[in-house]
Amino acid sequence: MTVQRGRLLGIGVGPGDPELITLKALRLLQSADVVGYFVAKAKANKGQGGNAFGIIEQHLTDTQQRLPLVYPVTTEKLAAPLSYEDVISDFYDTCAVQIAARLDAGQDVAVICEGDPFFYGSYMYLHDRLAAQYQVEVVPGVCSMLGCASVLGTPLVYRNQSLSVLSGVLPEDELKQRLKDAEAAVVMKLGRNFEKVRRVLQELGIDHRAHYVERATMGNQRIVPLDEVEPMSSPYFSMIVIPGEKWRG
Amino acid sequence: MTVQRGRLLGIGVGPGDPELITLKALRLLQSADVVGYFVAKAKANKGQGGNAFGIIEQHLTDTQQRLPLVYPVTTEKLAAPLSYEDVISDFYDTCAVQIAARLDAGQDVAVICEGDPFFYGSYMYLHDRLAAQYQVEVVPGVCSMLGCASVLGTPLVYRNQSLSVLSGVLPEDELKQRLKDAEAAVVMKLGRNFEKVRRVLQELGIDHRAHYVERATMGNQRIVPLDEVEPMSSPYFSMIVIPGEKWRG
Repeated sequence: MTVQRGRLLGIGVGPGDPELITLKALRLLQSADVVGYFVAKAKANKGQGGNAFGIIEQHLTDTQQRLPLVYPVTTEKLAAPLSYEDVISDFYDTCAVQIAARLDAGQDVAVICEGDPFFYGSYMYLHDRLAAQYQVEVVPGVCSMLGCASVLGTPLVYRNQSLSVLSGVLPEDELKQRLKDAEAAVVMKLGRNFEKVRRVLQELGIDHRAHYVERATMGNQRIVPLDEVEPMSSPYFSMIVIPGEKWRG
Repeated sequence: MTVQRGRLLGIGVGPGDPELITLKALRLLQSADVVGYFVAKAKANKGQGGNAFGIIEQHLTDTQQRLPLVYPVTTEKLAAPLSYEDVISDFYDTCAVQIAARLDAGQDVAVICEGDPFFYGSYMYLHDRLAAQYQVEVVPGVCSMLGCASVLGTPLVYRNQSLSVLSGVLPEDELKQRLKDAEAAVVMKLGRNFEKVRRVLQELGIDHRAHYVERATMGNQRIVPLDEVEPMSSPYFSMIVIPGEKWRG
């Protein structure tokens, strides 16, 4: 007798407020045999489950299996010959094997992501490894940049404006060029890149249009004027939003 | 005795699948005294409620007041001295007055939007007219481009890639320049602009990376190879998605 293979579910759980999960995400999450979630080693060591897990933990039953996927590294520099790329690539390989074993045993595995699974989500690397062999369903979520715009109360893009979504990790020159050409922009992944990003905005003379938010829609959300942010205290879940110019319409 | 003013609620209802509404959107929607929705004149004349209304109608009770906001024009050319901008601006003024009257009477008014309210949503123009005078809450939603990526099964942006969100209405030169510089891109508002956009993608040699979807996540969704799309039949709710290059990680 062959076992019917389980389904892989990539589930966006929204930007942080547990109420910003969709009905579909909730339904599929509650139907899954296994719930996989990425978590930093420091948190896992303290028995914590990571941000995405915190958003949805209340909805799980005791019989649903938890599958923590613990990042071997975060952003620290590694000693040669190790590279971040190699280490993280091996990690995703291992995660994919763990998940495949459960799918092969007929279990449905939900992998949860903050925001949306296909918008910078770690789920993408599992999807690219497994989607060709297994039945997959992806549930889109409210992404963090729209969570930010909502709590700021600032419309993001009007009519035919273009929106540029940028990573704060980009080199200063490239960041400057892309921000110069942008009508509306969002800069994600600030953290240690904050000071560089603020400098670029100041040099372009658009810092007065920029809004800064930490942990938008979460309980500990903070909205701080750009010139009052302490650069080294900017968390990973912070973002700069530069809304498009208001249209008179 | 003074009446306590009502609240204005800008509510994103997601890309089309009624299950892609958030718990928060649903709760606030069901608590509202008045539900406002934008609708094209042709649909309103047939007694229909528009796309966003169709997504949420099942959740409303008979006692909740419906407030259709009927667009006086869509995209047709107007005879001089009328301009689209003037006509639509007057229309939003009128909508704001209608809503303000209800807020002043103490009613909570929810204005629904497909996708997200601040991501090209018509709600933005009411927000800009009313947010300074009234208590406002905006509920972000799953935006259409992430609905598209999910049904295509294609991760959209990896790691530190930049994403460009563009309107198909842009002039050909600008579209070309912006697409040339993009790592991942989404082109919205296709409709009559489809042929121009496809030509630009072909000229840049990136048409093989582009995916085309109509009405993603809706019952009548269609995914069609780019070279098989009938240009003049492309609906407003169609989109081209150019995912970022896969990262080996």
